[in-house]
Formats: sequence, C-alpha cells, structure tokens
Amino acid sequence: MDGTIYLVGAGPGDPELISVKGLNALKKAEAVLYDSLVSPELLENCKPDCEKIFVGKKPGVHFMRQEKINEELVRCASVYKNVVRLKGGDSYIFGRGHEEVEYAQAFGINTQVVPGISSSISVPALAGIPITKRGTSDSFWIVTGTTKHGELSSDMVYAAQSSSTVIILMGMRHLSEIIQIFRQYRGWDEPVGIIQDGSTPQEKRGFGTLETIEETVIENLLSSPAIIVIGEVVKESPDWVDVCRELEISPVFSEHMSLMAS
Amino acid sequence: MDGTIYLVGAGPGDPELISVKGLNALKKAEAVLYDSLVSPELLENCKPDCEKIFVGKKPGVHFMRQEKINEELVRCASVYKNVVRLKGGDSYIFGRGHEEVEYAQAFGINTQVVPGISSSISVPALAGIPITKRGTSDSFWIVTGTTKHGELSSDMVYAAQSSSTVIILMGMRHLSEIIQIFRQYRGWDEPVGIIQDGSTPQEKRGFGTLETIEETVIENLLSSPAIIVIGEVVKESPDWVDVCRELEISPVFSEHMSLMAS
Repeated sequence: MDGTIYLVGAGPGDPELISVKGLNALKKAEAVLYDSLVSPELLENCKPDCEKIFVGKKPGVHFMRQEKINEELVRCASVYKNVVRLKGGDSYIFGRGHEEVEYAQAFGINTQVVPGISSSISVPALAGIPITKRGTSDSFWIVTGTTKHGELSSDMVYAAQSSSTVIILMGMRHLSEIIQIFRQYRGWDEPVGIIQDGSTPQEKRGFGTLETIEETVIENLLSSPAIIVIGEVVKESPDWVDVCRELEISPVFSEHMSLMAS
Repeated sequence: MDGTIYLVGAGPGDPELISVKGLNALKKAEAVLYDSLVSPELLENCKPDCEKIFVGKKPGVHFMRQEKINEELVRCASVYKNVVRLKGGDSYIFGRGHEEVEYAQAFGINTQVVPGISSSISVPALAGIPITKRGTSDSFWIVTGTTKHGELSSDMVYAAQSSSTVIILMGMRHLSEIIQIFRQYRGWDEPVGIIQDGSTPQEKRGFGTLETIEETVIENLLSSPAIIVIGEVVKESPDWVDVCRELEISPVFSEHMSLMAS
C-alpha cells in the first residue's frame, strides 16, 4: 500500500500546542482519525475534502473498539496517501499508539511517529508546577491509575517510597486508594495538585494535602480527565498560597514543617 | 516593566518539533536567549533585527553563569516587549526554567510558559520504543543522572525495583554505576537502549542488555547528550532485532527467557 500513517500527538488541549510537524501532517491529510481529547479547532486545519473519523473513547464508554480503529486505519491507508491518526497528548504514552503502528506495519503500511506535548508534563507546568526542581525533586514518575486489568499499578508503592514527583493519569476513579498508599510513606501533609481539562478554557484545579485533597475534589466538582500531581514541587504553584490560607499556615511555615517531618 | 518573557520549549532537536505557539512567540520576539541544545534553524524564524543571545552550556563548561542569564532576561524585558527564552526539550524538566521565571517575576515581569516536547519521551518514541505498553509497562520514571551535588539520585534504587520503564537524562558519565544498580534488581538480561542526539541528523543509537551495553557504547562511540532507556519496552524497537542477532538469540526466545526469569 502507498499510504503513510502519521501518528500525531495533538498536545494537552490548547490547539496551538500541537507541533509544527504535526500541524503540517494534518494540513496535507486526506483522512484523519481523531480522539475525544483532541481540540475540534485543530480539525479546521484539514483540507475541505478530508475524511474526518471520530474514533474517541470516553471513560467507561467505548465508541469504537480498538480492533475497529485498527481496521479503519488500514482501510484509509489503502485509499489515501496521507492518513493522520491524531491522539491527545503524546500518542506513545498510555495511548495505544504503538499497538496501532504495529498493526499497520503488519500490512506493510509506512508509519511515522510525530511526538506530541504530553499533558502529564505540560499541564502541571501551565499550573505553575515545575515537576523537577534542583534540590527538591530530581526525578518524576508518571503512572496510569487504570491498568489493563483495572487495578492500581504495583509500581505505585515504589513511587510513593521515593522522593520523586509522582504524576498520575486516569487516576480519579482510584483517588482514595492512591491517597492511602502515599499517606503511608509521605505523611498526611504531602502536597497534591489536581488539574482537570488542563490547558483548555474549561480547566479546573484543586490543590491541597493528602489530608484535605478529597474534600477539595468534592468542593470543586473535579472529575476526569484530570492529572494528579503529588510532591513537594506542588508548593511552587501560585495556587499553593490559597491552600496555606485555608489551612491557616504560612507558606514558609508549611515548608519548615515538612522539612522537620522528613 | 512592559515586556513579557515567553519560556519556550524548543523540542528534542528536530526544528519542526517546536509547538505552533512556541514558533509564533519566536516570530514576534525582539530578543531570544537560547541554549546549545536548540537547533540553529529555529532562529531563522526570528525577525531580522531580533537580538539573539547565546546563553548555552555544554557538559562541564559553563558559557554564561545562571546569574548572568537571569540578569540578561531582566535587561531584555526592560528594553523589549516580547522576549523568548528558548530551551531544548521542555524547559520545566531538568532545566532551570522555573528558577528563571521566579527571578523575572520578582521584578514584576510578566512570564508565560509555552511547554515543549520533552526529549525524554519523544526520543525513545522516534527510536521505536513506546515507553508505556499495556501489559508490559504501565509507568515510566524519568531521572537525571547528574544531580545538584554530582551524585546519583537516591531514587534510582526504587526505580530499579519497580517494573517501570526508566529513562535517564544526562547519565552517560555515571553509566557503570547505573548499570550496577539495575543488574541487582532486574538481572543482566534487562534491555537497554541509548540514543545520542535524538531526532537530529547526527542521531546515534546503541542497544543491548545490562550485560552488553557498555561494550556497545564503546563500539558505537556514544557520548553525551544521550538518553538511556531501561526496560522490557526497549524490545519493541526495530533495533532490538540486531541485538538478538549479535547475542545469537531469537527475539521470541529472548522474551520467553525473561518471562521465565521474572
């Protein structure tokens, strides 16, 4: 087959956070298969006769089975020259981008990966959280809250023991369980930031500690899709000042407390 | 001061892997402060009279001290309306982007973060390694090999114990030490991929196991800047087939062996 499938990461939500290479692929595509996390504005860059196929999934509801998506990709590559598979964030992180590439390659179809800006990294940054900081955090751990079999990743316990910034995607359904694990190793005062629909006009945030965050989630009506950030670096966000006001601690005092506790 | 500083991530090296938003900021900038990891082609997008200031560092050699960079940023923001601080990859990962933002904000300067495509994620993807894969790896852990005080991160031991894909930036100088730690917990057959100058025409790769990788590094003359990936997902890269040929194992056999060992 002559068609090429471009696996393009659309970025975290803001349509301007796609890469130049990704946008160029989109502009010349004759077919685009896109997810629910992709901004509709991005599709306005497509040619007027471009075939746009929604293959999105929402939590718990599968609009198109993975097998069907794979088949659609192969069908498009047999008809068109340039096919874009557009996925939210970066398509090689907790997406099934690699599985789709493997499937297409088995049919002899050319594939090209165009990396995207992962929401796991960019959404905290846009909320003022540097996920690494010299002297505070020299590593970060990104884990999915929803594994293949529905349970929590066994790596969560190692992550909690480390001093790493931990970023959890698709974890809202298991939030209580996650908090329990981290309380065990990091204490109840560890800062947590939750950002829903990051980088979009719908963005909502909730900041707190492992003690208070569940209450904050309820008060702020936070739900999926959201990113959970756990670690000292959360205190760098301007939102942290509000937490200190609510807990009636000064930002400086709070830092001293956690130093004493560690 | 009226100027705004845009902290823009330039992406992993390929100039087309900057975001649309980052490119737009670059096009309207009157001053750009850029690092050594930034592609020179990107600067061709600047206006003809744009002041271009190289503030790069190379391993071991500091061309401009951080204090001086901070001062230059403030100077530019006092003279110009749009100042871009252009850093390789994403500027909030192991960069000192956040420190620069904090410094500028203390002078009342507006700052805006424009996230970039991190090399830690995109370079493995471009080498055919999906850093997560359903059923194989449901988390990844990114750590710097060079901490503030020069020693290895204490988190490395937790990472080695987990089943997480581990990605090490700036780790080539500590490679032997890193390998020793991982051999202890993951055995000598654990796959390793090293990619130097990823996504650029100078890209070089070396694949192997925790037993063979040091030899590969010497044979392929690999050095910094490079990204080290440790984990089962390395086997997904087309480069893994070469490793199997060299070690005289079939890709399938190798997988069975590691399943039996785990």
